[in-house]
Amino acid sequence: MKTIAGGVTAPLGFLAQGVMAEIKKKDKKDVAVVYSECPARAAGVFTTNLVQAACVKYTKKAIADGKAQAIVANSGNANACTGPQGEKDARLMAETAAGMLKIEAEDVLVASTGVIGVPLPMERVIAGIMEACRGLSPHGGYSAAEAIMTTDTTAKEIAVELEIEGKPVRIGGMAKGSGMIHPNMATMLAFITTDAAISVECLRTALKDSVDISYNMISVDGDTSTNDMVIVMANGLAGNREITDETGDAYRVFKEALDYVNVELAKMIARDGEGATRLIEVQVERASSREDARRVARAITASNLIKAAVFGEDANWGRIICAAGYSGAVFDPDKVDIYLGEVQVARDGMGLPFDEDKARDELRRETVIIKVDLKQGQWSAKAWGCDLTHEYVDINASYRT
Amino acid sequence: MKTIAGGVTAPLGFLAQGVMAEIKKKDKKDVAVVYSECPARAAGVFTTNLVQAACVKYTKKAIADGKAQAIVANSGNANACTGPQGEKDARLMAETAAGMLKIEAEDVLVASTGVIGVPLPMERVIAGIMEACRGLSPHGGYSAAEAIMTTDTTAKEIAVELEIEGKPVRIGGMAKGSGMIHPNMATMLAFITTDAAISVECLRTALKDSVDISYNMISVDGDTSTNDMVIVMANGLAGNREITDETGDAYRVFKEALDYVNVELAKMIARDGEGATRLIEVQVERASSREDARRVARAITASNLIKAAVFGEDANWGRIICAAGYSGAVFDPDKVDIYLGEVQVARDGMGLPFDEDKARDELRRETVIIKVDLKQGQWSAKAWGCDLTHEYVDINASYRT
Repeated sequence: MKTIAGGVTAPLGFLAQGVMAEIKKKDKKDVAVVYSECPARAAGVFTTNLVQAACVKYTKKAIADGKAQAIVANSGNANACTGPQGEKDARLMAETAAGMLKIEAEDVLVASTGVIGVPLPMERVIAGIMEACRGLSPHGGYSAAEAIMTTDTTAKEIAVELEIEGKPVRIGGMAKGSGMIHPNMATMLAFITTDAAISVECLRTALKDSVDISYNMISVDGDTSTNDMVIVMANGLAGNREITDETGDAYRVFKEALDYVNVELAKMIARDGEGATRLIEVQVERASSREDARRVARAITASNLIKAAVFGEDANWGRIICAAGYSGAVFDPDKVDIYLGEVQVARDGMGLPFDEDKARDELRRETVIIKVDLKQGQWSAKAWGCDLTHEYVDINASYRT
Repeated sequence: MKTIAGGVTAPLGFLAQGVMAEIKKKDKKDVAVVYSECPARAAGVFTTNLVQAACVKYTKKAIADGKAQAIVANSGNANACTGPQGEKDARLMAETAAGMLKIEAEDVLVASTGVIGVPLPMERVIAGIMEACRGLSPHGGYSAAEAIMTTDTTAKEIAVELEIEGKPVRIGGMAKGSGMIHPNMATMLAFITTDAAISVECLRTALKDSVDISYNMISVDGDTSTNDMVIVMANGLAGNREITDETGDAYRVFKEALDYVNVELAKMIARDGEGATRLIEVQVERASSREDARRVARAITASNLIKAAVFGEDANWGRIICAAGYSGAVFDPDKVDIYLGEVQVARDGMGLPFDEDKARDELRRETVIIKVDLKQGQWSAKAWGCDLTHEYVDINASYRT
């Protein structure tokens, strides 16, 4: 497997475009369309929030048959808590794209992200969708990734090429994140494309398992959004023998590449968390169960106190063991070892004398590694977060106004 | 019931003192002793964190017999993750106070709060305990409340007088909070004294139920500390007929006053959350169950996004319904009404046109009221939190150093 240029348009047969439709206040792209030249298999994972945006409700139905050919997405407005009008608007977005692309509305998936509770400015949204459809291009992946940004500071995309039984296969992806990010099912928008031939069943399993170790392991602020979704579309144009066996080699190779794409996108989201200056990677080792390893890793990435301490380059390991302690995981606190990067700061649940300057250097890295060795069993997990800064407060003190 | 002057020394027979022992870097009080002139009934509620400070382990054992006569507490150092030495130190704190007060070490409860993972400077701690014991005074409540402060900006105390079967009875209390505050059992230190005569069983039930609607309903940052405890001591000097019946009038009157004291202390803690400029009170109405009402109220007080929006005076009600949605409570999102103070901002899950200036005025109050009417059942709950500010980040970026 190797990384290649491009994002969602790197796989064969996928076109995309992002345009400015003036949904956002500023002069930024805000409508994206991703299109496969032939019908694709599709799978999705959606927010667990009880309050679900109109687009989430629509897309869950549209994807139930395992087929899709296009995605239409807007930023700047979440189309959530918008009542029956919001549901009509979500459908109209799909119908507009379907009309332009000469496909069925049921094969168009819809996603929105932005402010909750404000009706979509449909005239501008429709004009945007039409313009994006007209501009669809095999080089349009990056502009589509730009168009789904909200408070993101960088567009997030990635693509890889792998070989399945001698055939080159590509997977591309784009995502947006930034705020309302918390590990509880898909917690942002991510759209993955691939030209692999793969059964819907295999695609669904692969996506679900992959989301579990990627997007479900990131936290920016502990808030699970109303609009999150991860979609994968597989159009089969790579011409590999269809992957139908979840225990086979071809599935394993595909899944590894899909995991790589999702973990990298997830890390990009965490690194670009609202106001963040650093990516925090938490590595939990030797937990008694997979769930315990995950709980500890997630509690540490979600702790405001730890996030603020990383921002302040303060080697406050007590907050790390404290978060492990309230995570719900079961372990013996008197066995815990903690490392900041290469510097061990606690052994057997107690502080070690350590070089403050070296510890500070570890906390100054662009990626800060926190390792917690529970010495209980054989399960490990990784989770990703970011530091808590003044800028997070600024961004969220005036997001709506 | 009426509010009276004083804190823990307002009830008959209670003395206290706070002194400077140089455990903290700055010139501040950091050792407190509270003492009852006669043996008292005692009950406690402790942190649910798996990682528990040495003082928590010690005090849980010491209070198991339902008796206590003194509390010794220090700020500036949590005596957590300090291994066997920490356990010896906690015991030595009790023994030092016991020696001075001529009582059993088992009747002295120990509490610590501050940095995790650093051994106590025992020489200074012992000197401080001795000085505090020598200085015990019926007017020492306030100095004791000062001595348990960490990043608190104000000492927190309260006292009330009530009548039980014609006899005046007093309840006093002090607390510290500020950071690592999250509703999950007792999440800070609070010490309550009363001269009521009450059985240990009744005292335990009253404390547990009272903690549930007070300290367990506040959040500053979602972090549950390793050191939290709430202790109540009842010395019986008021001379009322002993309260032994949890269904009786006397118990009800006592419990109401205890609730008042605990809720007020809890609100003081939330209002003085690290960096906070405002108290946020969340009122959830018409939930289908008590637990659902509590879940929604707590999720809203814990949301960084809502806390930052209050700081920025941004009427971003979408974040409120979003937090309700991921709280775990079950309700119909299309029925939810939301009010900011007097201003209704959403009806039936959708936004209403509202006067932005009036909404902003509501968010400028010292106590911001967020009301969520679920229109499902008949259960309600209140929770308290504070806004998220730059100062929270500053305080926690350099707490340890």
